Amino acid sequence: MRAVVAHAAHDLRLEERPEEAAPGEGQVLVRVAAGGICGSDLHYFHNGGFGTVRLREPMILGHEASAVVAAVGKGVAGLTPGDLVAINPSLPCGQCEECRRGLRNHCNDMMFRGSAMRFPHAQGLFRETLVVPAGLLHPVGPGVDAGLAALAEPFAVCLHAVKQAGSLLGKTVLVSGCGPIGCLTVAAARLAGARHVIACDVVEAPLKFAERLGADEVVLVGADATGLAPYKAGKGGIDVAFDCSGHPAAVATAIECLRPRGALVAVGLGGSMPFPLPSVVTKELAVFGSFRFDTEFGEAVDLIARGRVDLSPLISHTYPVDRAVEAFDLAGDRSQAMKVQIDFG
Amino acid sequence: MRAVVAHAAHDLRLEERPEEAAPGEGQVLVRVAAGGICGSDLHYFHNGGFGTVRLREPMILGHEASAVVAAVGKGVAGLTPGDLVAINPSLPCGQCEECRRGLRNHCNDMMFRGSAMRFPHAQGLFRETLVVPAGLLHPVGPGVDAGLAALAEPFAVCLHAVKQAGSLLGKTVLVSGCGPIGCLTVAAARLAGARHVIACDVVEAPLKFAERLGADEVVLVGADATGLAPYKAGKGGIDVAFDCSGHPAAVATAIECLRPRGALVAVGLGGSMPFPLPSVVTKELAVFGSFRFDTEFGEAVDLIARGRVDLSPLISHTYPVDRAVEAFDLAGDRSQAMKVQIDFG
Amino acid sequence: MRAVVAHAAHDLRLEERPEEAAPGEGQVLVRVAAGGICGSDLHYFHNGGFGTVRLREPMILGHEASAVVAAVGKGVAGLTPGDLVAINPSLPCGQCEECRRGLRNHCNDMMFRGSAMRFPHAQGLFRETLVVPAGLLHPVGPGVDAGLAALAEPFAVCLHAVKQAGSLLGKTVLVSGCGPIGCLTVAAARLAGARHVIACDVVEAPLKFAERLGADEVVLVGADATGLAPYKAGKGGIDVAFDCSGHPAAVATAIECLRPRGALVAVGLGGSMPFPLPSVVTKELAVFGSFRFDTEFGEAVDLIARGRVDLSPLISHTYPVDRAVEAFDLAGDRSQAMKVQIDFG
Amino acid sequence: MRAVVAHAAHDLRLEERPEEAAPGEGQVLVRVAAGGICGSDLHYFHNGGFGTVRLREPMILGHEASAVVAAVGKGVAGLTPGDLVAINPSLPCGQCEECRRGLRNHCNDMMFRGSAMRFPHAQGLFRETLVVPAGLLHPVGPGVDAGLAALAEPFAVCLHAVKQAGSLLGKTVLVSGCGPIGCLTVAAARLAGARHVIACDVVEAPLKFAERLGADEVVLVGADATGLAPYKAGKGGIDVAFDCSGHPAAVATAIECLRPRGALVAVGLGGSMPFPLPSVVTKELAVFGSFRFDTEFGEAVDLIARGRVDLSPLISHTYPVDRAVEAFDLAGDRSQAMKVQIDFG
Repeated sequence: MRAVVAHAAHDLRLEERPEEAAPGEGQVLVRVAAGGICGSDLHYFHNGGFGTVRLREPMILGHEASAVVAAVGKGVAGLTPGDLVAINPSLPCGQCEECRRGLRNHCNDMMFRGSAMRFPHAQGLFRETLVVPAGLLHPVGPGVDAGLAALAEPFAVCLHAVKQAGSLLGKTVLVSGCGPIGCLTVAAARLAGARHVIACDVVEAPLKFAERLGADEVVLVGADATGLAPYKAGKGGIDVAFDCSGHPAAVATAIECLRPRGALVAVGLGGSMPFPLPSVVTKELAVFGSFRFDTEFGEAVDLIARGRVDLSPLISHTYPVDRAVEAFDLAGDRSQAMKVQIDFG
Repeated sequence: MRAVVAHAAHDLRLEERPEEAAPGEGQVLVRVAAGGICGSDLHYFHNGGFGTVRLREPMILGHEASAVVAAVGKGVAGLTPGDLVAINPSLPCGQCEECRRGLRNHCNDMMFRGSAMRFPHAQGLFRETLVVPAGLLHPVGPGVDAGLAALAEPFAVCLHAVKQAGSLLGKTVLVSGCGPIGCLTVAAARLAGARHVIACDVVEAPLKFAERLGADEVVLVGADATGLAPYKAGKGGIDVAFDCSGHPAAVATAIECLRPRGALVAVGLGGSMPFPLPSVVTKELAVFGSFRFDTEFGEAVDLIARGRVDLSPLISHTYPVDRAVEAFDLAGDRSQAMKVQIDFG
Repeated sequence: MRAVVAHAAHDLRLEERPEEAAPGEGQVLVRVAAGGICGSDLHYFHNGGFGTVRLREPMILGHEASAVVAAVGKGVAGLTPGDLVAINPSLPCGQCEECRRGLRNHCNDMMFRGSAMRFPHAQGLFRETLVVPAGLLHPVGPGVDAGLAALAEPFAVCLHAVKQAGSLLGKTVLVSGCGPIGCLTVAAARLAGARHVIACDVVEAPLKFAERLGADEVVLVGADATGLAPYKAGKGGIDVAFDCSGHPAAVATAIECLRPRGALVAVGLGGSMPFPLPSVVTKELAVFGSFRFDTEFGEAVDLIARGRVDLSPLISHTYPVDRAVEAFDLAGDRSQAMKVQIDFG
Repeated sequence: MRAVVAHAAHDLRLEERPEEAAPGEGQVLVRVAAGGICGSDLHYFHNGGFGTVRLREPMILGHEASAVVAAVGKGVAGLTPGDLVAINPSLPCGQCEECRRGLRNHCNDMMFRGSAMRFPHAQGLFRETLVVPAGLLHPVGPGVDAGLAALAEPFAVCLHAVKQAGSLLGKTVLVSGCGPIGCLTVAAARLAGARHVIACDVVEAPLKFAERLGADEVVLVGADATGLAPYKAGKGGIDVAFDCSGHPAAVATAIECLRPRGALVAVGLGGSMPFPLPSVVTKELAVFGSFRFDTEFGEAVDLIARGRVDLSPLISHTYPVDRAVEAFDLAGDRSQAMKVQIDFG
């Protein structure tokens, strides 16, 4: 079995690993179908980690993947060999204080695949075969593309973000930062009934993707940020803003555009930044952080499977597993790539 | 100028009325284009009123209408002769305790067009010309059908209802009662990102309309109500239910289908009814009443005008104003009619 | 070891039972100190159960109790012999769908002490000694009366109910039904910053208790219900109502008294009842069911232990364990008793 | 009639002004009783304004005042000469977009007494007599001290802030910055049922006031900020934090202390500041701005008048009107003064 393993910054290898054993009770053996490269994968690839999270041993990357059921263990119901499934990469403990409070995405003992937050690291999903607990597999149903199914994880992140703002029905929405998370947030906001969705970025190429994912208006911001001027007039014209950039200028602009009692959902992880707190006070804005997802994983699978939303324009490139390193090289180039996936099939 | 005037139960007349004077400051003269017949219009027509609200003088019916601007008074900006507009039939006082609390749809001195709640009655919109304050007119923009624009009012009612339940994104929704309000609630729930919308009724014909408005599944309920059995299993499988029927059996069924912490939004006005309060307690359900609309009127106009939702399948019949009485006769027949509109043009 | 065992309706026995074994890993042996008789205990005593929940084998009653730690098992931290603790009678499974959704009080495999809902029944707390998982014991701290500590469970029910209504700060509150749950809801509403708390009942005696627990105004309702007339004027003058009676007349009166957008929290379990749903619609009321508690158990212990609230007036009688049957006889007499406790010490 | 008039920074004068005319229809003539000096008054006094808000003409200061009714105009009900009242200094227009959305504290044409935001400035309340619309006067009832009644305005600010966080019942609360607004927030949080209230400041003297207003624990922060260390452990131990300091270090500390899904209510107005947005994201914190008040003014009056809360420890000094300038000098000295009031009586 082959796996995509990060050893250190700029040291990514396609390696042979031993086959998985037969699935035990409650477990399932799957053959991974498609895997999407995410920003955190790129951090391991380019920098060997981010912040205090660093590679301390070789780690299989990947937490966005779909797979085909190969064999089911004892006591597993509802899954049959051949089924296409999306793999939920997050497994909260269910016992800690946060889990008991119902905050499972804040689990103190979270096992999140393809993450170096804990040691030994939680090995990821970019591998040909895998044994997982059945509860982490969500059947996608027939006729769905494996690549689309692998978008369930990032889309779950965006559904979770959209829910933080309450109902978007009839609202005017701004999304800052049009990487894959920004573009999927555009799609989620449209799906949630927003009246008008504006997407902005400092680079032109991603804005095309945002449009294909449902943005009504795209604005190139930067040196000359006049594009958002109409939304800054008066006390502001935006009901809900999503920051998917983590960039101070984007956050400041979003706050300037928000109407009194508007909401900013912060999704992007930058660093500490200058922040116009007085505007938050005088306009009584609400700022909500959004981190990963919980029950939204199953919802994402279902919404994709039912065709409620078409996320296919997000996938800019698909590479066979042999060219995985090439795929990683491309994925970091915002002028060309949006979501790059690896085909394990 | 002709107007559709209710004198008493079964005494509806197309009458000649004096032309309106020129619009004063802040006012606009419009020519009514399309008017939709609503359930309350039918109550006046068939029963001379409902509950304690009774016709005590002749009243022009109608509160769902679009119009074309004919002339604008001094100080009116943003409206030009020829513009198609939707007319907001509700004018809260802005001064009473409820208005000061921000609950304008509960205004203690509400002027709601085509309603006999106050005396003298608030004369309605089924008339060829009308002078109104400019603030009640919402421009629809070019290329929109006058009949669609006249759906803004009932659609606003449904947007308001949907908002009571918070975000519907990814939720499983049940709508009971598929009259115009039920069908538009189906459309609003779909627009708000519901994962699966089930519509039910005791009559077959309206279910076809519910499907066209976006229901994923329609269920004929009645003597043999097995259609909803899967949603009653366990503690229930519905996240949010909308009762647009006002019928005790529908309410009881909805409560049986709701999951723990699910929500029932009550839109339909029946009478006092037997109610399974113990299930509300043990499943910790939330029941929210929904009454008319507030800022949703403008949102409805905008969502229709932008084509975010296609409500055209709702309009089953359109009659010229000379056949207004005939239109009223038909509008009460659920086996044939859904939304019947009068063309004043 | 003695225990208070219900065999059938009107067949309650003080029985000798074998001593508990030594506490295992993570377990604690406690000597029960005080136990409060609750309405459900009285249902088993008088009727052998309620609804479909019936005694099918002898069951130790009781789910409101405090205890003193006698011995701690391996791996138990933070508890020392001699500590007074409140015993949480509810143990959700942590694995079912409801637990995973964060709705632990709706656990599909709940183990709730002193309840015949499951078979074999979950034996209760009215016994001299008991071994329990350490996580169910909440230290009360020094200087707190054992009887007060045993009120943590019913007070948790009321804290949970109060939270359903959101913030009560500055609100006018009505509590219907002044049994122990009603009186503790009065105390919880006062604690939550209500501006004015009105308590009503059809019997005079409990109203005195409601006053001692913090009601600003008590109203005897019944044949001549003029006492609440000021709150029915206009559209109603109550912001939040708690029904702790389960009685149709009380619910109807509460709804009549609620202002537009007011909230009714239903705590009491009556049967299906006639219900003025049209008033819920036209006033846009919210009705929230409230069932048991979750994290509120620990909060209740803490608020009692810190003296944030004085619940001592609730305890009308305390009987030694030898007179347990007599205590049950008295507990059902609303003209004399409020909370009757058994002293196991 | 004498008035306290700011002409420029450090140019505050006690001036003779013409008597008010008799009250017109709907108006009331009052004799001001007590007036409290607020931080914004001090900004005019020390700096001639703040930010872009500058004195451009002489302005009577003051927006915290109680008064005694002297004469009532035609059509005024419910007020009698001799009544003690609190004066609401804010008069929203009721017609603008924000008022129509129910956001009256964000009124685009707000008339707020004693503020140089608009020109001509809205003259304030530090004057011996005044004519005001009756709706701005809230009767305090007999037996209440005029100084306490004058605390209604700043207490309303704090009730509004506390409401932004939802229910505080059973919560652990941190208040940063123990000026008058911080201390009153401590009182409001206690009133709202917080389990444990920690107050912190960089100066020792104000902490004594915080204690008297209800803080369970006070922490001197600064160079050596170990006092809050227990609340920073793990992911944090505070449920809700109120920043009443506007200071970057206080905000950063509050965010460090907040548990996952905790809330920060920002009340203090500092400037743009470095802000740990990544912690807001990963802990999914909510940050709510809070600005002035709306219906809370009447609630504040009522809670004070009913003795639900004792705010008297806040008033550190009271000066007769002749010594008004001296009062202003003292009010800025945090080592001595908390709330300094002027006695106009």
